[in-house]
Amino acid sequence: MQNVARSLCRRSGILKTLASAQVQTPTNPRSQHLAFSPTRPSSSSALWNLGILNHTAIAVPDLQKSLAFYRDVLKADVSEPEDLPDHGVTVVFVNLPNTKIELLYPLGENSPIAGFLQKNKDGGIHHICIEVDDIESAVKHVREKGVRTLGERTKIGAHGKPVMFLHPKDCGGVLTELEQK
Amino acid sequence: MQNVARSLCRRSGILKTLASAQVQTPTNPRSQHLAFSPTRPSSSSALWNLGILNHTAIAVPDLQKSLAFYRDVLKADVSEPEDLPDHGVTVVFVNLPNTKIELLYPLGENSPIAGFLQKNKDGGIHHICIEVDDIESAVKHVREKGVRTLGERTKIGAHGKPVMFLHPKDCGGVLTELEQK
Repeated sequence: MQNVARSLCRRSGILKTLASAQVQTPTNPRSQHLAFSPTRPSSSSALWNLGILNHTAIAVPDLQKSLAFYRDVLKADVSEPEDLPDHGVTVVFVNLPNTKIELLYPLGENSPIAGFLQKNKDGGIHHICIEVDDIESAVKHVREKGVRTLGERTKIGAHGKPVMFLHPKDCGGVLTELEQK
Repeated sequence: MQNVARSLCRRSGILKTLASAQVQTPTNPRSQHLAFSPTRPSSSSALWNLGILNHTAIAVPDLQKSLAFYRDVLKADVSEPEDLPDHGVTVVFVNLPNTKIELLYPLGENSPIAGFLQKNKDGGIHHICIEVDDIESAVKHVREKGVRTLGERTKIGAHGKPVMFLHPKDCGGVLTELEQK
């Protein structure tokens, strides 16, 4: 997972966020090495709230097989595959009662998940996405806390809403997407 | 991820399920190589239903840092660390409005996530857990469909309910836990 951000940054990006993504260092470069202190002041802290887990994204090497697993084995409500050429993926939505699993399959020559699947031949969890009610304030806040973002500004994601990816090394090894509610 | 099940099977197990886990081949060994056909009869298919995503489990190399990330950066509702010696982990619950993220940190010499963290130095998503309303029927059903399980019988998991892990190679590269609702 530690190479995910780097490999993603080299490719045209999923959700456009990563298309031209460069890791943005936090406002205070030293702070990325500090613990996240609850006592540190943050002007943007009070302006936003964390929401629900929107989805867990799984990169899969065989979309039909994974679709069949969720539909026919687990009996989940599964969408038809949908091509998202701007994002370099074909996506299938697995609709659970409380959240979604999104199956991602490479689309086109420069898919942002191609590198991930080369490293993870059987597939694997690519990222998690959590909603926030004010994406701009949230991004400002996490940067103040020393978390690096993939890209300088929020961009419009696959759901038509602004998103920002956070560096997996600052998120316990997990590529974490914040999405406007 | 493809080595997770193997490494887990070598160790005393998380949620006890994996303590003595051996990969169980499906009733029809050939079926693991077949697509999961919706037309294949399954006597247990009608007896159970898939439920919510109970949690996404993240193995972390620095529990305090990850706890601080979710509490102080993302402003999530985060529990105190809880030792689960029978399962070889210390766990922190990150309570989102619709589901949980569980941070897992190795506890004791034979923690089932130690090997995962050796391969994923920065941490990473270890498994997902989905609820079912009849775990025994669900396990029978997935086996009939050719999905291998880690262990012969359901065992009591960390939440005090019967659980079963499914082989990641049969689940799009994702270690998948089914838990009784």
